[in-house]
Amino acid sequence: MITGKNYIGNQLSAKGSKTFKTFNPLLNIENPWGITEASNDEVNQAVELASEAFKTYSKISGVKKATFLREIANEIEALGDELLQVYSSESGLPNGRAIGERGRTLGQLRAFANHIEAGNWVDASIDTALPDRQPLPKVDLRKMNVALGPVVVFGASNFPLAFSTAGGDTAAALAAGCPVIVKSHPMHAGTGEMVASAVIKAAEKTGMPNGVFSNLNSSGIEVGQALVQHSKVKAVGFTGSIKGGRALYNLAAKRDEPIPVFAEMGSINPVVLLPKALKNRAETIAQTYAGSITLGSGQFCTNPGLIIGIKSEGLTNFVNTLAKEIVKIEPSCMLHPNIAGAYETNKTKALSQKGLKVLAGYENEVEPNFARQVATTVEGETFLNNPTLHHEVFGPFSLVVQCENEAQLEAVISNLEGQLTGTIISDNNEITEHSNSISALQNRVGRIIFNGVPTGVEVCPSMQHGGPYPASTDSRFTAVGVDSIKRWVRPFSYQDWPNELLPDELKNENPLEILRIVNGKLTNQQI
Amino acid sequence: MITGKNYIGNQLSAKGSKTFKTFNPLLNIENPWGITEASNDEVNQAVELASEAFKTYSKISGVKKATFLREIANEIEALGDELLQVYSSESGLPNGRAIGERGRTLGQLRAFANHIEAGNWVDASIDTALPDRQPLPKVDLRKMNVALGPVVVFGASNFPLAFSTAGGDTAAALAAGCPVIVKSHPMHAGTGEMVASAVIKAAEKTGMPNGVFSNLNSSGIEVGQALVQHSKVKAVGFTGSIKGGRALYNLAAKRDEPIPVFAEMGSINPVVLLPKALKNRAETIAQTYAGSITLGSGQFCTNPGLIIGIKSEGLTNFVNTLAKEIVKIEPSCMLHPNIAGAYETNKTKALSQKGLKVLAGYENEVEPNFARQVATTVEGETFLNNPTLHHEVFGPFSLVVQCENEAQLEAVISNLEGQLTGTIISDNNEITEHSNSISALQNRVGRIIFNGVPTGVEVCPSMQHGGPYPASTDSRFTAVGVDSIKRWVRPFSYQDWPNELLPDELKNENPLEILRIVNGKLTNQQI
Repeated sequence: MITGKNYIGNQLSAKGSKTFKTFNPLLNIENPWGITEASNDEVNQAVELASEAFKTYSKISGVKKATFLREIANEIEALGDELLQVYSSESGLPNGRAIGERGRTLGQLRAFANHIEAGNWVDASIDTALPDRQPLPKVDLRKMNVALGPVVVFGASNFPLAFSTAGGDTAAALAAGCPVIVKSHPMHAGTGEMVASAVIKAAEKTGMPNGVFSNLNSSGIEVGQALVQHSKVKAVGFTGSIKGGRALYNLAAKRDEPIPVFAEMGSINPVVLLPKALKNRAETIAQTYAGSITLGSGQFCTNPGLIIGIKSEGLTNFVNTLAKEIVKIEPSCMLHPNIAGAYETNKTKALSQKGLKVLAGYENEVEPNFARQVATTVEGETFLNNPTLHHEVFGPFSLVVQCENEAQLEAVISNLEGQLTGTIISDNNEITEHSNSISALQNRVGRIIFNGVPTGVEVCPSMQHGGPYPASTDSRFTAVGVDSIKRWVRPFSYQDWPNELLPDELKNENPLEILRIVNGKLTNQQI
Repeated sequence: MITGKNYIGNQLSAKGSKTFKTFNPLLNIENPWGITEASNDEVNQAVELASEAFKTYSKISGVKKATFLREIANEIEALGDELLQVYSSESGLPNGRAIGERGRTLGQLRAFANHIEAGNWVDASIDTALPDRQPLPKVDLRKMNVALGPVVVFGASNFPLAFSTAGGDTAAALAAGCPVIVKSHPMHAGTGEMVASAVIKAAEKTGMPNGVFSNLNSSGIEVGQALVQHSKVKAVGFTGSIKGGRALYNLAAKRDEPIPVFAEMGSINPVVLLPKALKNRAETIAQTYAGSITLGSGQFCTNPGLIIGIKSEGLTNFVNTLAKEIVKIEPSCMLHPNIAGAYETNKTKALSQKGLKVLAGYENEVEPNFARQVATTVEGETFLNNPTLHHEVFGPFSLVVQCENEAQLEAVISNLEGQLTGTIISDNNEITEHSNSISALQNRVGRIIFNGVPTGVEVCPSMQHGGPYPASTDSRFTAVGVDSIKRWVRPFSYQDWPNELLPDELKNENPLEILRIVNGKLTNQQI
């Protein structure tokens, strides 16, 4: 049952006077449940509870935190089909996607549980004392990662489960030892409450301190602003638009004590089509990309919004096939009327740019909130001179840039902003002939793909999801995979600390049997 | 010979019209050599060269970069006694300190050379493909750290060698693969030029690209501002005042593309004296601290500016002994008349605060630019209510806060800003009785010390030098030790990339024989 209330720690709470409803874009009607926005008092209560919980939660063992994370996964599973139904009602996404995303969410929680149970992630480093060293004795120093403090996680519109309430950011922060306050995404606040209830049940069952998790509702920006500005909040995770992410980053940078903001924002995920690949298989590539551009109504952050090639017969074949294929695909529902509306606005703006030509667009009537895909093209020179064309159109929109030559290809790549991904479509030996262009692309992305599509983000340790600004506010961290735990910690050194009072990770006996760098050598042995 | 010119890459250059001189605080006269400030053109040239150099330098092997770093160390040694003389002329620091700091600088360069030669620092992680996985095949993903781009390093006033031209920040950035533009500290620009000449010689000898290093002079803030705002600069390292560090942080945060600023700033390095330790050995502790407070005229960033205890006979003994001991120490010369002047100003401001009492201060006449040490004391309640008392007085100044009880001790600690270090003076078993106070201290510092002094920063992998704001702008990184290389890199993933085109660190054959996480297991084996 959805109460529409906030979770202030373990307590359901609805002290605010503002309410709102979520929307079913497929049925084009409001969902029946009402949601109450968090009041200022509730914001402060949640942060104070989190700050108090941090004192104990930051010191709980990895094994015990792992139990908590696994129990969250179990409780989410126990929500059963009702969660999937609410998810679809609030996103328009189909049941299959709901099942897949739930699986990913559970997988993330369990991967973090395994990660912190193994314990090596604390990067323990020990340099033992040399009391007889000349001219000065060497002290004993032992270093490991410790949690930053309470963190705020903003739910993402496009991943109601995997990047929202108990999604990647939350799982990583809880694994690190940071209490989490979720600013629930207003488009799927009901889904958010259900997942929050699972987190709270898990916290209670496994004996976690009250305040380790809170879930706050709001349809506007005030609750998020208050959270980011609160002096006891120590870091922020966000997935969404450049405008939203940059606003939070600016707020955090202006605080008396600036805090890190990990915002994963817009990306057009450039795809570079090399000449021989185009010559040999332009049609196949175009078919694949027609699918990638329209996947999930183009609402993935890795959607390929920009395709770049050098003019040739092959490139002409590619654009012709793309035009033919992309209109064959049935449009699908976007997440919300606001998102569908923004897509229309941004698409219209792009289409009105001088020199931009439509290759093909779906033109039949569609249901409300459905996105009609469009593929467009432009000359390299025109693209270079118009920054508007470099911006993301969130939805099933793609632009093919046709360059005169290799030099222009390199110039186009070099003038791109930071991106989550870059893709090279290449025949096997061709890539070495374009090393300057490929180097330029590498400097602008977090992940580079050979002969594939950027959509489909594998959740594994070697994934880097995050790129130079504005793809992310901090390219030094990933938002996907167990290494995302590194966003929520800082290194901490103990000098000459008594062995029995050190955390287990740093004790001589190495009771957790973790890998540590001891006097320069990696080992899991005792000292 | 000091030319007073800038190094724009490998070229000496002096196009600017402004000049200044450095100052010998011990002799209280200007040094003879004139220094020419960098012009806007020179700033731009240096950044453009660095950006161009990045294309090749970022791809040079660890072994080759190590040769470069070792050659820098050799060339600095080859500067011989003249460097030590110029160092002392520009800082007032004695020859012994010059020799020690040079040793530390060479040690840092060689430690980074060893670190990148070993190669494990890239954190290589490989997840191989599973083409038959259901429902979707798994791609091959391989991740490693790559250099951020050209970085700017600001020389520190208090470490003309170890945290300036070829100091820790520069060594770490060059090791990471980032070209470095140094904004030379105006107080020791001659020392800076000599060290820069050594870096340039080393770059030429080892075949590094022109622009891998530049050294720019300026006595004001314009050159630094221009560098931090330049779109091709990708990160900044700074050691100095909170005011200066925060100004750079703010500039960087306002850029179209915000960049990380690693500023290591002020700290009062609180020392907590526990009751039993005070009861048993107040006099010895006071003697030790009289020395630590006045070490190097109190110009170390880890100088103990704040000592906290609970009122008792032991604490009275401590303050009485501290008063007696601190005036026995001969004052020494500060780095510059401006620093000596600021010390007098800040000391006078602190002494004028209501409730602050002088325990003892050196009162005899001293030479110009010498700092007269002072120890002061205040009630816990007064300290809690006056934030001015929480601020650093850079120099040989310390404040003893006398608390009524444990609760007030915890409150005093909890109200401190972020610090580089915290120290606990404790008898062996006593520490467990004060766990709340100690936890509060841990949350505010980067390094915690048991029964020692915060001065004396061991350069080793387990050192964390950096703490919560305002000790540092980014507590997630250290400024000392080989892990400081992590400030200048970002993770980068290759997806399905052809093995022969991968960097050596990620090739199946593991030609560098580095440790890698392959499908979840740490190994140095081939795939």
